[in-house]
Amino acid sequence: MKKLRQVNIPLKDMPHQWYNILPDLPVPLPPPKDPDEGPSRLASLPKLMIGECLKQEASQERWIDIPEELIDIYAQAGRPRPLFRALNLEKKLDTPARLYYKSEFFSPTGSHKANTALAQCYYAKKQGFERVTTETGAGQWGTALAYGSAVVGLKCTVFWVRSVYNWKQDRRRFMELLGAEVFASPSPKTESGKKIWEKNHEHVGSLGIAISEGLEDSMRDPKAVYCLGSVLNHVLMHQTIIGLETQKQFKIFDDYPDIVISCFGGGSNFGGFALPFVGDVLTKGKKIKFIAAQSEVAKNLQGEYRFNFADYAEYTPLLKMYTLGHKIEMKPIWGDGLRYHGASPIISLLRDKGYINTIAYPADERYVFEKAQLFTQVEGWLPAPESAYSVACAIDEALKCKESGEKKVIAFNISGHGFLDMPGYEKVLGLK
Amino acid sequence: MKKLRQVNIPLKDMPHQWYNILPDLPVPLPPPKDPDEGPSRLASLPKLMIGECLKQEASQERWIDIPEELIDIYAQAGRPRPLFRALNLEKKLDTPARLYYKSEFFSPTGSHKANTALAQCYYAKKQGFERVTTETGAGQWGTALAYGSAVVGLKCTVFWVRSVYNWKQDRRRFMELLGAEVFASPSPKTESGKKIWEKNHEHVGSLGIAISEGLEDSMRDPKAVYCLGSVLNHVLMHQTIIGLETQKQFKIFDDYPDIVISCFGGGSNFGGFALPFVGDVLTKGKKIKFIAAQSEVAKNLQGEYRFNFADYAEYTPLLKMYTLGHKIEMKPIWGDGLRYHGASPIISLLRDKGYINTIAYPADERYVFEKAQLFTQVEGWLPAPESAYSVACAIDEALKCKESGEKKVIAFNISGHGFLDMPGYEKVLGLK
Repeated sequence: MKKLRQVNIPLKDMPHQWYNILPDLPVPLPPPKDPDEGPSRLASLPKLMIGECLKQEASQERWIDIPEELIDIYAQAGRPRPLFRALNLEKKLDTPARLYYKSEFFSPTGSHKANTALAQCYYAKKQGFERVTTETGAGQWGTALAYGSAVVGLKCTVFWVRSVYNWKQDRRRFMELLGAEVFASPSPKTESGKKIWEKNHEHVGSLGIAISEGLEDSMRDPKAVYCLGSVLNHVLMHQTIIGLETQKQFKIFDDYPDIVISCFGGGSNFGGFALPFVGDVLTKGKKIKFIAAQSEVAKNLQGEYRFNFADYAEYTPLLKMYTLGHKIEMKPIWGDGLRYHGASPIISLLRDKGYINTIAYPADERYVFEKAQLFTQVEGWLPAPESAYSVACAIDEALKCKESGEKKVIAFNISGHGFLDMPGYEKVLGLK
Repeated sequence: MKKLRQVNIPLKDMPHQWYNILPDLPVPLPPPKDPDEGPSRLASLPKLMIGECLKQEASQERWIDIPEELIDIYAQAGRPRPLFRALNLEKKLDTPARLYYKSEFFSPTGSHKANTALAQCYYAKKQGFERVTTETGAGQWGTALAYGSAVVGLKCTVFWVRSVYNWKQDRRRFMELLGAEVFASPSPKTESGKKIWEKNHEHVGSLGIAISEGLEDSMRDPKAVYCLGSVLNHVLMHQTIIGLETQKQFKIFDDYPDIVISCFGGGSNFGGFALPFVGDVLTKGKKIKFIAAQSEVAKNLQGEYRFNFADYAEYTPLLKMYTLGHKIEMKPIWGDGLRYHGASPIISLLRDKGYINTIAYPADERYVFEKAQLFTQVEGWLPAPESAYSVACAIDEALKCKESGEKKVIAFNISGHGFLDMPGYEKVLGLK
């Protein structure tokens, strides 16, 4: 029988609920807490966060309805997105494994980040806010929030890790075209940024510092609210639409994954793709190996499992997570979206309980980008630098199957495209 | 009843035949002919062109089967692609018109050009060629052929109009990542290029010159064959999959267009989108207004209708077309894909018979890019600079409906995305 190249589900079958894994976790998720000293961060959360998101953050409801208007906005953003069978790649690798990839690169801003950006902007608008503020590392999240706010009618301010701000000029222009204001971080616009910026105007920045700036900017303006693009429970939950669609699409393929892979920075695309499958493992007895593909410079899943701040300036409560410490300095990499000190509390707990495997790829990125190039030459789609880690890991697993002769089913997420990130490929692969 | 935001057809319903309009034209299409002097160009065509494409070029069969393997490759390239209802744009414009746009930007290389690139590479490989050569203007076609040749396993050489080669660095890197070799044109690599290049190493080039270079390069190498990305009958026919899908999608919307719009350089995306609807007009008595959106610097549809060469160096036969003359010098524009001296013979004949309207937008492009920005801010998708003309024209027609109160149905094609073309937006809109 002819092998299907890709499947999609009709718009009417797009999931109308997000999956909240909290009630299904093997043990309760440790709630965020205050540090022993200083003002209460927990007490300030209702002022810092969108009300609906804060509610979702601690919800014990397994299924949370996606508002009807948001379903429409998702459709406008091109959801549902196809699941591809990587037949060309299988042939090229000569592997008995069956490879499938999800196409989050079809989003208007080129990545999965739109899934939660649209949700957060929708709720922020509904609550009466006029502006959203945020940080961004690779720029995918900043672009997504710029888009989300344009579509629902909000202003948007982005603090962008300077090392990336400097080289992703086209992505910056895209954010501005969408109407956002964008600052390199650390910036002189906030107290927390200014302290660092004054010592070194060219400080490369970090996601932790940029989060502090975004938080501070919103705290000073009652009409503004801060949005976070990863780590938190509600963010991963918004992203579960990826995995929920994928499950429906696997049914059409009449197949099911043995291995589920994605790249991992704070955990939003990994969580969104993997958590519905983790749910199958926890509640339906399925057996799946989950692999989070990281960079050697930010292998937070190999850090300590402890309470830690989510930002540099310690504005956030403490979250129980695998962490490298919130003051760590990490070398810039082209796949900058992976460069964050801590892992999402949900994924951290699952890792602590033995459900999540991880691999860290070398900092020079040649190995990873060459795998992405091979993928692009046979499958056609150009992964974002971060998604290249997902591709590399899937290829590695497929090659292991070639050696062992095992016909494993490998599912991987391509969280975004690389069209606005070409300088990374240029430098690493030596393109002219 | 709730309004649908977008529809798609399942993979199995993707058209399995292209539509060849030749037998349905109101009068027979004048065949290509030789000039009065010099060697016979017609006689050399079998050496210059892929055999199957040459056959298709003159076929009088209304429906031409898409090979099964190519159907698979189209699926791999993400076809079928959704048709969107522009509800956000309608609201923003406060127009009674209903607007629909086709999403060719979902292609792996970001434009409709992949539809014929994949077909031509498939046929070239089957005929035993090892390399394809071509020209490119905006770079969309060169990227698509680089991709097509990578996927089927051919080498690829691209001669790229220098004025664009110089500013689209990221697109150049993408072609190289796909494995293509790329030269700025006019180049010293060919006799026809060298003549011009020696007088001026920084000559901005033109599509006509680059075509000559691509042709010459393939003529010198028996293992190479030349591929053209627009103008010719078989190219437009390969592109009809766009319009054929759109017709099926309009049925699901239970709607039908009064106005069909796209941007127009040589005619491939316009033809691919419009010709199935022109077929409805010619054979089913439908009434549709067709508008080709052009640039003032290359308004070939307002030129003379006469026999003319398709290239600068006169390697091609004479084609009967609307033309500005094959030696004309045209000012570079950011929407460079529209900068060609002649219009496809099929569209030219239809224009001569009164079926095709046209509009030419100002050379400074601010008007057009501002419309594209408005579109992106409400619908989310970033059009290629060329597709921005299609968007601008659709918005203009929608605003006319607002004035007149007419509830017209406007369908427009977005032939590609602009992620690899941001410097154009930057310069025209003054982004930082």
